[in-house]
Amino acid sequence: MPRVVGRIGARGIAELLGAWHPGRATSTALHRAVRRLVLDGRLAPGTRLPAEREFAEALGVSRTLVVRALERLREDGFAESRQGSGSWVRLPGDRAVADTGGWPPATPDLINLAQATLPAPPELTTALDRARLRFPAHLAGHGYQALGLPELRERIAETHTRRGLPTSPGQILVTNGAQHGFALVLRALISPGERVLVEHPTYPNPLQAIRGVGAEAVAVPMLADGWDLELMAATLQQATPKLAYLIPDFQNPTGLRMSAADRERLVAVLRRTRTTAVVDETLVDLDLTGETPPPPAAAFDEERVITLGSAGKSFWGGLRLGWVRAPEDLVRRLLLDRAAVDLGSPILEQLLFTELLADAGPMLERRRAHIADLRSALIAELAEQLPGWTFRVPDGGLALWCDLGAPVSSRLAVEAEQHGLRLVPGSRFAVRGTLERYLRLPYTLPPGQQGEVVRRLARAAARFEGAPDPGPLDVPIS
Amino acid sequence: MPRVVGRIGARGIAELLGAWHPGRATSTALHRAVRRLVLDGRLAPGTRLPAEREFAEALGVSRTLVVRALERLREDGFAESRQGSGSWVRLPGDRAVADTGGWPPATPDLINLAQATLPAPPELTTALDRARLRFPAHLAGHGYQALGLPELRERIAETHTRRGLPTSPGQILVTNGAQHGFALVLRALISPGERVLVEHPTYPNPLQAIRGVGAEAVAVPMLADGWDLELMAATLQQATPKLAYLIPDFQNPTGLRMSAADRERLVAVLRRTRTTAVVDETLVDLDLTGETPPPPAAAFDEERVITLGSAGKSFWGGLRLGWVRAPEDLVRRLLLDRAAVDLGSPILEQLLFTELLADAGPMLERRRAHIADLRSALIAELAEQLPGWTFRVPDGGLALWCDLGAPVSSRLAVEAEQHGLRLVPGSRFAVRGTLERYLRLPYTLPPGQQGEVVRRLARAAARFEGAPDPGPLDVPIS
Repeated sequence: MPRVVGRIGARGIAELLGAWHPGRATSTALHRAVRRLVLDGRLAPGTRLPAEREFAEALGVSRTLVVRALERLREDGFAESRQGSGSWVRLPGDRAVADTGGWPPATPDLINLAQATLPAPPELTTALDRARLRFPAHLAGHGYQALGLPELRERIAETHTRRGLPTSPGQILVTNGAQHGFALVLRALISPGERVLVEHPTYPNPLQAIRGVGAEAVAVPMLADGWDLELMAATLQQATPKLAYLIPDFQNPTGLRMSAADRERLVAVLRRTRTTAVVDETLVDLDLTGETPPPPAAAFDEERVITLGSAGKSFWGGLRLGWVRAPEDLVRRLLLDRAAVDLGSPILEQLLFTELLADAGPMLERRRAHIADLRSALIAELAEQLPGWTFRVPDGGLALWCDLGAPVSSRLAVEAEQHGLRLVPGSRFAVRGTLERYLRLPYTLPPGQQGEVVRRLARAAARFEGAPDPGPLDVPIS
Repeated sequence: MPRVVGRIGARGIAELLGAWHPGRATSTALHRAVRRLVLDGRLAPGTRLPAEREFAEALGVSRTLVVRALERLREDGFAESRQGSGSWVRLPGDRAVADTGGWPPATPDLINLAQATLPAPPELTTALDRARLRFPAHLAGHGYQALGLPELRERIAETHTRRGLPTSPGQILVTNGAQHGFALVLRALISPGERVLVEHPTYPNPLQAIRGVGAEAVAVPMLADGWDLELMAATLQQATPKLAYLIPDFQNPTGLRMSAADRERLVAVLRRTRTTAVVDETLVDLDLTGETPPPPAAAFDEERVITLGSAGKSFWGGLRLGWVRAPEDLVRRLLLDRAAVDLGSPILEQLLFTELLADAGPMLERRRAHIADLRSALIAELAEQLPGWTFRVPDGGLALWCDLGAPVSSRLAVEAEQHGLRLVPGSRFAVRGTLERYLRLPYTLPPGQQGEVVRRLARAAARFEGAPDPGPLDVPIS
């Protein structure tokens, strides 16, 4: 019998399913909705489902409908049942998972819009050739560099100093990406049951990390054009979260940038409420405005602001390197705690990143111009083929945050799969399953493919034209 | 004021200090003992110490003695005090930490015996040249491979199959080292308050990982020549740990290997008590016996045994790659959970490791012969200069587990620092602060340096000749 890893109650799954059908409760709709939860990772493979009767009661549907949906799930390989043991969800086959190396399975001709990330720049291979020459000097050592290579920490410190935040190498801990840096910070500063303030919508992986340490995410909704600092102040005061996870530079997924004045106000609020902010600067280099950028958030208060950096978006996701910039005593503490998670980042990768940082300016300039072109191309395709979708042109970053005009994002994602398109519905960027009106649409594919993406999107979206709107779902979470 | 990250009570620090003086309680002895706790990472920088009077009472010494020891700690940069706020420990300066990249600070001429690990083999650079040719094919992709590169998973599966455990790539998750793999397994299978059985002594980093998820390590003492399977069975029955972390191949630090018959008995016990074992095979390639090895533990029960592998000892620590071998459904679950910690391992590093595995046999053969020579050289030096130290010649791995004849390991480590030698005292391999009679002594330094190591050791040890033995401390933990 397969490993059963947990169970979900009838009310729990009803809540996860949310508005699972477009007006008519059918077994097909339930089948697709559960399948989507599994593909999204919101329902872990191995989770035991509630008994059919309770499941049906919680959804307000007939038991026969649930039985049929389960049958379909079993046929597709998304569920398994055994007499007396009930049913549990699974992922179909192993092959597909193995092929993509990503989280959900994919078919070969699928266009994947789950990752908003670009191919590597050509400078990567020449940087590798330089790193290759410096590699042998390290091979006589044991190779453990839990803080990071000194020369890389120096280069990273210089990038902060250049952007207006004087930084010493002692304030830098090299990590395996920004997410790894955040996981280390959470491990050091957060105990189970404590709260972490997040923006809403926000990037889903940090939410998973927050849940992973047994903490609770407290969401403050974004405004259409920025941060609601008054509500944030009130939330910090009332919910007393210990940390705030914020993305002031091209907020993921909204693409908004926090103004200098708001950064100053934010830091004043942090001081007043004695909260520390973890500021994720993963996208900071991808500024598409051409304006003088506001000072880094940490420039307003070095003690209250921890900064996360990443090579993943500015350079390439396959590097898997990032860093934490923090007061030196906290860097030392993160270092001591790190041994519980891993023993440092790879040497060769760090040499490669050091070389990339040596002369990143012109490369980043070209990259920004290229991204701006991609953004324009996607906007033009949408204007032509999906004029009902609306969005604010983002200040930077790699994606549009589209308002679909109706709460259909999850159902659109299921439908799009039939058209060879992997989407991440808006609800993935919510603390709980709301934001069904929204879709994050990356403009990271080659221009030729973007037209094809929008054609497939339009075909998938056509299914929901005129479908009854089940009413407002996007109740702000506070 | 520096960040205070926690506090320790008077009884807590008294317990951590254990037998902190060689017979006479002086402020010098207390100063050194606290310093050692900080260097070891057993007392985290930023921990607030108890008030002087309570501290003195818990140790049964005068308050003046404690005050003087604190003064010395402040002078060295290991403590800081403020009127009204008490004292807290810290690490001196940042420079030293930055220089080593390791956990505790080090001085330039220090010989570091904290890591039992070898320099990289020459094959690494030729493997890199081959990987370099295959790198550009990956640069057009997004670079996220959370399961690991398919070709690497295939190669790793082949190594298991060759050693008598048929394995498919779907059973392999590539990680950033064995410790990272263990952290992912703990995150998936262990909840706070649950128990994990460990060998005693054992490798300290997994203990830190176990504490990190809020679980409790339950220790079963090793016998002089192997595993006490009866006691293990009784402990599994009575303490009902959910997992067991075991190192059957060249147990770290004892160097023992579990026989085939014991592996079979172990698995029978796991089945009976419904426990899953996480078997760390980091050292499995470093077999120095020349005998036919016993079958892998997982060959006796694939469901009950999760295997951790690592490139760190067989190849090089600077690679920072390892893997988990587990049932396919568990691999998928680890994958889904992984996003909370990091988003995958670097592509280039994985290509390099794939190339290394392509033809690892002859390289590992030479490596084993080299390690056997190093082991003989260290044993010869010890026989000449420290004949009172005893040890069992290990079956494999990279270190001797020396019985010092008296419970002086921590004090020896402090003294050795004055002689330019960084040691890890035996107590670091204990679940709590015992094993003071033991020292793990790696034979991974070049032959010329090993003589110097033993000379410095002998000079440091001479300080404790004839020192009164404060009595038996190594009470087995159960």
